[in-house]
Amino acid sequence: MSLGFGRQYLAIPGPSTMPDRVLQAMHRGSPNIYEGGLIDMVASLWPDLRMVAGTSGHVASYIGNGHAAWEAANANMFSKGDRALVLATGQFGLSWANSAQAMGVEVTVLDFGKSAPADLGRVEAALRADAGHRIKAVLTTQVDTASSVKTDIPALRAAMDAAGHPALLAVDCIASLGCDEYRMDEWGVDVTVAASQKGLMTPPGMAFVWFSDAARQRCKGADLVTPYWAWGPRADPSEFWQLWDGTAPTHHLYGLREALDMIRQEGLAQVWQRHRVLAGAVWAAFDAWGAGNPAIAMNVADPKDRGWSVTAARIGAPDASRLRAWTDTKAGVTLGIGLGMAASDDPAYHGFLRVAHMGHVNAHMTLGALAVMEAGMVALKIPHGAGALAAAARVVAEGA
Amino acid sequence: MSLGFGRQYLAIPGPSTMPDRVLQAMHRGSPNIYEGGLIDMVASLWPDLRMVAGTSGHVASYIGNGHAAWEAANANMFSKGDRALVLATGQFGLSWANSAQAMGVEVTVLDFGKSAPADLGRVEAALRADAGHRIKAVLTTQVDTASSVKTDIPALRAAMDAAGHPALLAVDCIASLGCDEYRMDEWGVDVTVAASQKGLMTPPGMAFVWFSDAARQRCKGADLVTPYWAWGPRADPSEFWQLWDGTAPTHHLYGLREALDMIRQEGLAQVWQRHRVLAGAVWAAFDAWGAGNPAIAMNVADPKDRGWSVTAARIGAPDASRLRAWTDTKAGVTLGIGLGMAASDDPAYHGFLRVAHMGHVNAHMTLGALAVMEAGMVALKIPHGAGALAAAARVVAEGA
Amino acid sequence: MSLGFGRQYLAIPGPSTMPDRVLQAMHRGSPNIYEGGLIDMVASLWPDLRMVAGTSGHVASYIGNGHAAWEAANANMFSKGDRALVLATGQFGLSWANSAQAMGVEVTVLDFGKSAPADLGRVEAALRADAGHRIKAVLTTQVDTASSVKTDIPALRAAMDAAGHPALLAVDCIASLGCDEYRMDEWGVDVTVAASQKGLMTPPGMAFVWFSDAARQRCKGADLVTPYWAWGPRADPSEFWQLWDGTAPTHHLYGLREALDMIRQEGLAQVWQRHRVLAGAVWAAFDAWGAGNPAIAMNVADPKDRGWSVTAARIGAPDASRLRAWTDTKAGVTLGIGLGMAASDDPAYHGFLRVAHMGHVNAHMTLGALAVMEAGMVALKIPHGAGALAAAARVVAEGA
Amino acid sequence: MSLGFGRQYLAIPGPSTMPDRVLQAMHRGSPNIYEGGLIDMVASLWPDLRMVAGTSGHVASYIGNGHAAWEAANANMFSKGDRALVLATGQFGLSWANSAQAMGVEVTVLDFGKSAPADLGRVEAALRADAGHRIKAVLTTQVDTASSVKTDIPALRAAMDAAGHPALLAVDCIASLGCDEYRMDEWGVDVTVAASQKGLMTPPGMAFVWFSDAARQRCKGADLVTPYWAWGPRADPSEFWQLWDGTAPTHHLYGLREALDMIRQEGLAQVWQRHRVLAGAVWAAFDAWGAGNPAIAMNVADPKDRGWSVTAARIGAPDASRLRAWTDTKAGVTLGIGLGMAASDDPAYHGFLRVAHMGHVNAHMTLGALAVMEAGMVALKIPHGAGALAAAARVVAEGA
Repeated sequence: MSLGFGRQYLAIPGPSTMPDRVLQAMHRGSPNIYEGGLIDMVASLWPDLRMVAGTSGHVASYIGNGHAAWEAANANMFSKGDRALVLATGQFGLSWANSAQAMGVEVTVLDFGKSAPADLGRVEAALRADAGHRIKAVLTTQVDTASSVKTDIPALRAAMDAAGHPALLAVDCIASLGCDEYRMDEWGVDVTVAASQKGLMTPPGMAFVWFSDAARQRCKGADLVTPYWAWGPRADPSEFWQLWDGTAPTHHLYGLREALDMIRQEGLAQVWQRHRVLAGAVWAAFDAWGAGNPAIAMNVADPKDRGWSVTAARIGAPDASRLRAWTDTKAGVTLGIGLGMAASDDPAYHGFLRVAHMGHVNAHMTLGALAVMEAGMVALKIPHGAGALAAAARVVAEGA
Repeated sequence: MSLGFGRQYLAIPGPSTMPDRVLQAMHRGSPNIYEGGLIDMVASLWPDLRMVAGTSGHVASYIGNGHAAWEAANANMFSKGDRALVLATGQFGLSWANSAQAMGVEVTVLDFGKSAPADLGRVEAALRADAGHRIKAVLTTQVDTASSVKTDIPALRAAMDAAGHPALLAVDCIASLGCDEYRMDEWGVDVTVAASQKGLMTPPGMAFVWFSDAARQRCKGADLVTPYWAWGPRADPSEFWQLWDGTAPTHHLYGLREALDMIRQEGLAQVWQRHRVLAGAVWAAFDAWGAGNPAIAMNVADPKDRGWSVTAARIGAPDASRLRAWTDTKAGVTLGIGLGMAASDDPAYHGFLRVAHMGHVNAHMTLGALAVMEAGMVALKIPHGAGALAAAARVVAEGA
Repeated sequence: MSLGFGRQYLAIPGPSTMPDRVLQAMHRGSPNIYEGGLIDMVASLWPDLRMVAGTSGHVASYIGNGHAAWEAANANMFSKGDRALVLATGQFGLSWANSAQAMGVEVTVLDFGKSAPADLGRVEAALRADAGHRIKAVLTTQVDTASSVKTDIPALRAAMDAAGHPALLAVDCIASLGCDEYRMDEWGVDVTVAASQKGLMTPPGMAFVWFSDAARQRCKGADLVTPYWAWGPRADPSEFWQLWDGTAPTHHLYGLREALDMIRQEGLAQVWQRHRVLAGAVWAAFDAWGAGNPAIAMNVADPKDRGWSVTAARIGAPDASRLRAWTDTKAGVTLGIGLGMAASDDPAYHGFLRVAHMGHVNAHMTLGALAVMEAGMVALKIPHGAGALAAAARVVAEGA
Repeated sequence: MSLGFGRQYLAIPGPSTMPDRVLQAMHRGSPNIYEGGLIDMVASLWPDLRMVAGTSGHVASYIGNGHAAWEAANANMFSKGDRALVLATGQFGLSWANSAQAMGVEVTVLDFGKSAPADLGRVEAALRADAGHRIKAVLTTQVDTASSVKTDIPALRAAMDAAGHPALLAVDCIASLGCDEYRMDEWGVDVTVAASQKGLMTPPGMAFVWFSDAARQRCKGADLVTPYWAWGPRADPSEFWQLWDGTAPTHHLYGLREALDMIRQEGLAQVWQRHRVLAGAVWAAFDAWGAGNPAIAMNVADPKDRGWSVTAARIGAPDASRLRAWTDTKAGVTLGIGLGMAASDDPAYHGFLRVAHMGHVNAHMTLGALAVMEAGMVALKIPHGAGALAAAARVVAEGA
C-alpha cells in the first residue's frame, strides 16, 4: 500500500524543484535569434545575474553544467603549467582539482576530509610557503554538495591576505548560489562559478562564470582558453551570437528570466534567510532523531560549517537506503543518496543520505519531507529520538 | 519574513490539486470534434466512469459544476409537484433541496444539524408516514463538503427498504467520489451525481449523473426535463454531439482521461485506502492538538461519520482565520474556510476551517500541511496539545 | 507519403485554434476559490466581456456550451406558452428553435433555406401580423456556423421597429463574436448569446448571455427559469460563488482572461478587420476555383451575406470528402465537414465542406490552408480554375 | 493593419519550430538523476541517435550548441600542431576552421565561395599534395546553414579514397541531420557532428558527436582533449554522470526522447523525403518569381547542390529586408536573414534572406510561408514572376 500517489517532492540536491512559472516560461515556441524580443529580454538578464552573485563585475554564461563551469573557469584562468591550490571539503573540490589537473594545471590539494571545514591556517601556511607566488589561484567550493560542508569565504580571503599572496580566489557556488549568503565583491572573490539547476531554479543546461576586472587582467593570455570557453566575447560581445558562442539556449533563457524575477520579487536577502530557517528546521529534526539513536547524525558537526541548501547525514547502513526507498515509493518524497562517503558497492554506502532544501522550497515542502522521514523510520523500525517534528515546526514558527 | 516561497499546496476541499499529468493532457491544440482520435478516446471514458462509481448503469456527462449536476438530476427525476425527501447534514443537502424546490419540487428536509450524521430512524419514519408513496426520491450527500459529515449509504438504503418505500435513492458524491468507498450498484443507489474537480482530479467544468435502468424507467416523462439536462441522449446518443448536447468540452476530456488512467493505475480500492489513511493522520493530529486545548476539535465526533476527503474543524475564533492566513502567506499551505458554520460577517466565522485531503494527495502533502499548521499555532501562540505530528506520522507509518 | 508531419492546422469552425498563451494560462495549479487573486482577476473579465459584445449591459457567464447558452437565454426570457419568432438561415436557428420549443415556448420558424439571408420583409410581415404582440422575442443567429449565412442585425432591428413590435431581439453570436462586427447596444439588441470556443479563443466549456436592462425588466417572472440558468445572480451576485452558481470554472477563467487580453491588445476593430480580409482571401480563392469548375461554389452567393469567420462551400460529391481527407492526412490541414446540407448517409453529404477562418488565425494560416486545398485538388484531379492562390495573396496584400 | 495575429510561423534555419509534443515532454518536474526512470529512458536514446545518423558507431552527447560540437570534435581529433583540411562553401566551414585554428590546429581552408559546391577535384589534389599525410582530418559541412550549399559526401569520400589519403572525414550535419539524407557508415564518414535545435526538433542546448571505431583508435592521445570534451567517457561511461560529465540536461532529454519518437513514427526515410518535397516546393516558387524579376534568385544554381532544410536567396536590396519585415509583422511568418553574404552594415545585406523548411514542418507551413511571401511582394510592389504558388502547390501534389 503506497501513500505516495500525489505530487512527488524531489528533495535531492539538484536538479531542484523547478517552479511552475519557470517550466511554463520554457513551454513556448522558438524565438527569432537574430532580431526582436529575445534580444531585449537577454539584455535584462545580466544585471540580475550580477545581483544574485553580489558583483558589479563580468558575467559569462555557457550552455553547460557545473563541470562545464569549472572547465570554463580553468581555461580562462590558467596556462599549461600554472599552479592552483585547491581546498577539498568533500567531493567537488577534488573534482574541480581533477578537471584543472587534466587540463594541464599543476594542482596542490589541501584535503580536509569529508566532514570538516577547511583549516584556513593550513591554507595560509601553504600560501606563505609559495614564496615565489607560483600559485595563480586558490579554488574552493562554498558548499560541497556531497558533504554539505560550507567554507567561510571571507575568512579564506582574510587568510590569503594575511599570507600576502596575490593568488586569485575562485569559488564554486554551484550548490549555494541563491541559497546561502554570498557577496562576491564585498568578500573579495575574483572568480565565481555556478550552474542553473539548484538555487537558480532552472533546468540543468546553463553554467555561469562571474569574474572581476582584476581577474580579467591577470588572466589575459591564459593559454588553455579555447573559443567555446573564452569568457571575453561572452561577457563583452560585439554580436549577439557571441554571448553563447553560437546558438543561444533560447528556452532556458526564458526559464532563467522567470527564475530571476522570482528571486527579485522575494528579495535575495529573504531568499537566503528562507534557506537558513528551513535548514535550521532540518537540523533540529536530525538533532532530535540522533538524540535517540547515535547512528543518526548530520555529517557536519558545527552548524556554522553547514550549507543552507543541503544536509548530508548518516542513518546507519542499510537504513539510509531503506529509508530513501520507503519515502520514495510510499510517501512521495525522493531523498538524495549519500555521495562520496562510500563507494556504491560498499555496504557502508547504504548508511548515508542527503536532504536538500534548495531553491524553490518552502516550509510545507521541508516539514513534509521531515514528517515523511519520521513516518518511514517508524514503519521500518529505525530507532530515533522523539520530538523531531515538533522541534522542526518550532524552528519554522520562530523563523517565519 | 515568509517561508512560503516554493510550491504552494492548496488544501481546500475543491478544486483539489490538479496532477501535472492532467494539466499537461489539457495543454494541447483543439481536436477535430467530428472525426478522428477524439471520438475513440471519448468512448474509452464511459467504462472508467462506471468503474469509479461502482455501477454498470448509465452515465450522462455535462459541461457544468456540482450545482449543474443537482439540476440535471432534478430535471430528469421530477415533474413539477413531485415530492422529494432531502437529508441535510451540513450545507449541501440544503442547497440541493433549494435547487429542487426552486424547480417546482415539493421538498421535505430532514435537517440533522451541522455536525451529526443523519438519524436513519427519522428517515425511515418519514418514509413510513408517506403511506401514499408520494415521495419520488430521497436525496442525500455521501459527504457534505462543508461539515465533512458522512452518510452511511448502505444503512440508508436499508432504512428505505425497511420502510418498504419505493422512492429512488439519489446520492451526491461530489465531495467523495474517488475518495471514499462507494459502490452504487451494490449499495442500491439509483442516481449518483458528482463533478470533476475533487476526487476526479480534473479542473471544474464537468458534472456527471449516473443512473440505473430502474431510475430511467421510473423517471420517464418527468416534465422538468429540458434539452440540456436530458440524460437520455447523453447516455445513449445517436450522434457524437449529443454526448454533451453540442460542442464537447474537448480539453477537459483529455484531462479526465488522464485522471481516470491515474485512478486505474493506482487501483480504486487503493485510492480509497490512501484517503482513509491520510484522513486518519489528520484526525490523529487534531486529537492531539485538541487534547491540549478544548477549543480545538473536529466538527464530527465519531470517526465513522467523517468523510475521508475533508476534515472540518473548529479552532476558536478568530484563531482559525489567523491560522489560515499564516499558513497561506508564511508557509505555502492554503487551508479551507469553514463553510456554513457561521455567516462570514459573524465573528464566530473565524473559528472554523477545513483541511482537505482529497484527490491527488499523498503522505508528504498531508503531513506537511499538518506540520505547517502546528508551526502556525506555535507562531500565533494558539494553545494546542503536543505530539500531533508524531501521531500523524505514526498513522502514515502503519497505513503505508 | 505524407507531407503532413508538422504543426497541424485545424480549420474547422470551432473549436478554433487555441492560442499558446491561452493554453499556458490554463496550465496552472488550482486557485483558492474563496479568497485571493482569482477574485480580483474575475472582476477584470466583465468590462472586457461587455466590450467584446459592444454593450454596457449585463453579462451572465455559464459553465456550458452553445446549447447551454440557448437554454439559458430561453429560460430567462420565456414562460411556458410564450411565443418566439425564429429566423432560420441554416442549421442553428432551427436548433435554437427546437430548444425553445422543447422547453415549452410556442415557436414560429421563418425558414429561409440553407443558403440565403433572412428575408426581412417576411420578418416584418410576421411581426405586423402579430397584432396582439404575443411574440415575446425574435431569435436569430448572426452567422449560422453550418451555412455561413450572415443576418444583417441592424436591418433586422429596423424591420422590427418598422413593424412597431415590442418583441425582444435575441442574437446568437456563437459563430461570430470576436470575428464579425457586432455592436449590441448600438444595434438595439436585447439579448446576445455566445460561447468560448470560437472567436473567444478559449476551449469549449463556457457560455455567455448578455442582456440589456430592458430585457431584464421585461423578463422578470419568466417561469422557465431555474437556479442554474437564472441570469440575475450571475450578473449581479451577492457572493462570488453565485457568478457560476457553484464552483467557478477556474482554469477556463485564466484562459479567457488571456484571450480577452489578446483581443484588447490587437483592438476589437482590428480583430474584425483581420477576419474580414482573411474571409476575402478565402472567397477570392473559391471564386477562382469555381471559375474553372461549376461544381465548386461557395454556399452563399452574395459576399455581404457571408460571415467573416467561416465559409461553407460545395465541391461536388464525393470530392469534398476526398479533399478533406487528403488535406488532413497529407498536408496538415483539417477542414470542416459540411453540416446540415445533407445527411451523413446521403452521398450528397460528401460534396460539402467548410473552411474556418475564426479566432486565432492569420494570413499564414489561411493562405496555407488554401494552398494545401489547391495541392489536394491537383493531387486528386479535382478540376478547378487557375489563379486562386495568387488572388488570395493579392487580397491579403491589399488588406494588410 | 496587421494580418499576423494568430500562430506565428518561425521559418528561420534554426532553432526550428518545436513540436508541441517536445515542449510538453519538457514541461515536467525534475527527475531523480541517480536512480529510477530517467536512467532507463536515457538508455533508449542511443539506438535512436545512431539510427538518425546512420551509424553503428559511438555517440557522445554534450550540453552545448553547434559551436560546442565543433570544439568537441576538434578536441578529440587533434593534437596541437596537427593539420586539418577544411572545405568552405559558405559561412560555417570557415567558422569550424576558425575554431580548430584557435585551438592550435594548422588549418588549410579550401574556400569555394558562397554559392558553389565544393570542387572535389581541388580536394583530391590537395590531399595528393600532402604526400606526408600530415593532414589528420578533412572537415566539411553537409549543408552550410548560411549559403544552403550542400556537399556531396559520398563523392567527397570517393575523392579522398582516390587520393589514397588516410585522413579522417568529419562532417558537420548541424543544418541537415534529420532533414537531408545522411548515411554515416555507408558513406564512410568517421566523425559526424550535429546539434538539437534543427532537424532534431529539440530546443538549443544539446550537441552530438558520432564517431567510428577507426576514429576512436586514430585519435587516441589527441592532446587537445579536456575532461568536458572527452568523447570516451560520454560514449562509454562507467557511471551515469559521465554521460554528460556532470549533471545531465534532464529536461532536454525528455524533449529529445519525444523528438526521436516522432522521427521513428514517421520513418527516417519519410522524413528525408518530406524535406526533399517541401524544398522542391520552395524552389519552384523561387523559379517562378525569378522568371519575372532577375533580382530574385536562389543562392545555389543547381538543385542537386541545395540543402533540403533551408533555401538561401537574394531578392535585391533593400527588398529582402523589407519583405522579411512585412511577413513578420503583417502576416505571421518570420523569415531568416541572409547570413554571411554581406556585412550587416553593408546595404547589400538587405538583399538576402533565407527560408527554412527544416524539422517539424509540413505542406501547410511551407506553402503558407510562400503565399505570405508573395502577398508581401505584391504589397511592397516587389516585381516577381507569376504562378509561383500554383507551382509550389503542384510540387506538393505530386510529392504527397
